[in-house]
Amino acid sequence: MPEGQIKAGVLAIGDELLAGLRINTDIALIANFLEKFGIEIGEERTVRDEDEAIKSAVAELSERFPLVITTGGLGPTHDDRTRYAIADLLRKELVRKEELLEGVKKRLRELEMQYIPEIHDNYALVPQGFEPIPNKAGIAPGLFYHADGKTILLLPGPPREVKAVLQKIEPKFKELFGQSLVVKKTIRTFGIPEVDIQDKLKDVMEELGHVSLLPSPIGVDVVLKASGKKEKKVREEIEKKAETVKHILGEDVYGEDDDTLEKVVGEILRRRRLRIGVAESCTGGLVSHLITNVPGSSDYFWGNVVAYDNKVKEEVLGVPSELIAHFGAVSEPVALMMAEGIRKLLHVEVGISTTGIAGPTGGTPKKPVGLVYMGISIMGRTKVFHKIFKADRLGVKEQSAYTLLDALRRELLKC
Amino acid sequence: MPEGQIKAGVLAIGDELLAGLRINTDIALIANFLEKFGIEIGEERTVRDEDEAIKSAVAELSERFPLVITTGGLGPTHDDRTRYAIADLLRKELVRKEELLEGVKKRLRELEMQYIPEIHDNYALVPQGFEPIPNKAGIAPGLFYHADGKTILLLPGPPREVKAVLQKIEPKFKELFGQSLVVKKTIRTFGIPEVDIQDKLKDVMEELGHVSLLPSPIGVDVVLKASGKKEKKVREEIEKKAETVKHILGEDVYGEDDDTLEKVVGEILRRRRLRIGVAESCTGGLVSHLITNVPGSSDYFWGNVVAYDNKVKEEVLGVPSELIAHFGAVSEPVALMMAEGIRKLLHVEVGISTTGIAGPTGGTPKKPVGLVYMGISIMGRTKVFHKIFKADRLGVKEQSAYTLLDALRRELLKC
Repeated sequence: MPEGQIKAGVLAIGDELLAGLRINTDIALIANFLEKFGIEIGEERTVRDEDEAIKSAVAELSERFPLVITTGGLGPTHDDRTRYAIADLLRKELVRKEELLEGVKKRLRELEMQYIPEIHDNYALVPQGFEPIPNKAGIAPGLFYHADGKTILLLPGPPREVKAVLQKIEPKFKELFGQSLVVKKTIRTFGIPEVDIQDKLKDVMEELGHVSLLPSPIGVDVVLKASGKKEKKVREEIEKKAETVKHILGEDVYGEDDDTLEKVVGEILRRRRLRIGVAESCTGGLVSHLITNVPGSSDYFWGNVVAYDNKVKEEVLGVPSELIAHFGAVSEPVALMMAEGIRKLLHVEVGISTTGIAGPTGGTPKKPVGLVYMGISIMGRTKVFHKIFKADRLGVKEQSAYTLLDALRRELLKC
Repeated sequence: MPEGQIKAGVLAIGDELLAGLRINTDIALIANFLEKFGIEIGEERTVRDEDEAIKSAVAELSERFPLVITTGGLGPTHDDRTRYAIADLLRKELVRKEELLEGVKKRLRELEMQYIPEIHDNYALVPQGFEPIPNKAGIAPGLFYHADGKTILLLPGPPREVKAVLQKIEPKFKELFGQSLVVKKTIRTFGIPEVDIQDKLKDVMEELGHVSLLPSPIGVDVVLKASGKKEKKVREEIEKKAETVKHILGEDVYGEDDDTLEKVVGEILRRRRLRIGVAESCTGGLVSHLITNVPGSSDYFWGNVVAYDNKVKEEVLGVPSELIAHFGAVSEPVALMMAEGIRKLLHVEVGISTTGIAGPTGGTPKKPVGLVYMGISIMGRTKVFHKIFKADRLGVKEQSAYTLLDALRRELLKC
């Protein structure tokens, strides 16, 4: 990161954010927007809809950062305080912009509002020196100020409106801050803990520069960054870093950036012209939900049978009832027969299966909650493995589904 | 809100939050937790993984608020700075707690970690005077400090771990801050727009007092609040408000608080001793994933067939091929035959079905992307309806699934 890089302070305004009624997703939108100009967010704050709180936060952030962006509080009601607090802080008059009011009224009529209460006049109040930025996704315009090396951008709160105003302000930001050459790449892994990644990468950490490891229940992401003056060089640098990480982590890497396990598995199936069927018990449909989230998955995904009741396992998937009676529904032979059964039922090349105990009840000392058997049958060759996941019901379902997709990915790469 | 009420400052720590790589949902968990003790969050901040940033934020928040809660930065790696910054700020030694290290090692062995690198010793470093709070969902314990009227709670970052530590610390908070008499109730609706709810409730808004409407893609929540000195009276007040809202909104209300459509539908099925089977096409397994997210759903959920390929619709669900040839797979008669087909295949009383175009491709002028036919077959009586959802692929799947569950709920209430 070059010295002297511009950082921004971001302030979210709204009681509902601090009351936990609404999650703040605007910050991610703003971070992604600012990245285009090489600007990072240095600090974020959230305060209540109170003039004093807004004023002191903006004052403090302005002292630390040349650019301050606020979200929320631009509506017309009594608890929308942003324009008043900012005008007061900067000792600016609030000016009523008639042309803005006309736009607001037109927009409200488009939204089929029957009568337009006077309160909407507040939309037209702008602190002197601020420029209204059109908001095609809502009513409240953004408000922009730039003087004496200080830049302040007031955005509405709803994410769609934040996006709309940021889009409009982009040319101005390009002019003020210049385009950046910061490029990021995410290397996505599954089946390797964060500390093991850190350990494996420790000898190349210096060469990689800025690395973030982001663990989640469905794997660890390695986020790489490169920056510089020449685009070609920056691109080459990030590719080289990515190659280094992929080489070291090997098969634990399943993809890059927006890749998901279900997308990567789908690509292999499509490339190899293999069709897949799924037989699920404890995952209850999640595996096929994930597979079918990928556009175009109908090219290789044929179908799924969720066999929750044992009779369905027997009658639809052809699992022999003696097998269930002898080994139990949660067992290696049942997972095996389910994977083979769905392959035969749907006349496809690949069958995968899950049978386990998602909990919270139903566990025994021998078969605890979280125990899941998974089967993979590829053209007659069938393999079963099991895991014990320590998580709640949804967690067991999710970890089973992703573990199975990852195992299928590794299996397909082998054969 | 009584004067002198305690407010808390919350600090989230993590580069990834400011880089927009991760959304902060912990704040909602903390807000809901604190509400039990009548504590509101006065301000929230997010800073980078840098000692100085953490120190100055905690120092400033501590000046304003008697209670400061931080999230993140408690892991063992080089960018986990919280314990070091806090120890430095409060001029406390970092003490190595051997018993904590034993717990960490035991836990890592449970997670089947092959070797335990030395870096994990950092988990056992605790600033003097801080008490470790067990974290059953992860490895890093919470750290709690209370002296001279100052309370500091350091939480891990992942939401599940935040929940686990908060649960453990609850008795201590009860002791320190006392229970509160602020009670909330959420009335959950589906199928009615926010503006219509606002309109219907406008005559009772004053009586209801503090009301928040929270729209989401899967319905609008009406959040009610009551407070006072006597528990019995507060409970009666919130119940009365809830009754008022439920009476006015009628069947559009499907539940309260933690109720979900899938849970409510499950309760009706269980009560009526009805078993259900699902036949999905465009929703790809999501409907049965939702149904099986409910603990105990195996009592009434028998199974699911995802019939993506038309041959599966024909061979497994018994949809006549002439029907598909004549009307197309996305059509009223096919949805009808799918709902009846699954009912017969699984020998159950209730069958439901989806067939549609999830997109982004596959639409035609007559059958656009987002068109979904849904069928409900209850003991021989079958009904089909359709909707055109304007959303992306996942959005179409989600809206179809919830619309179908809601339609099934209304249908079951009728018969």
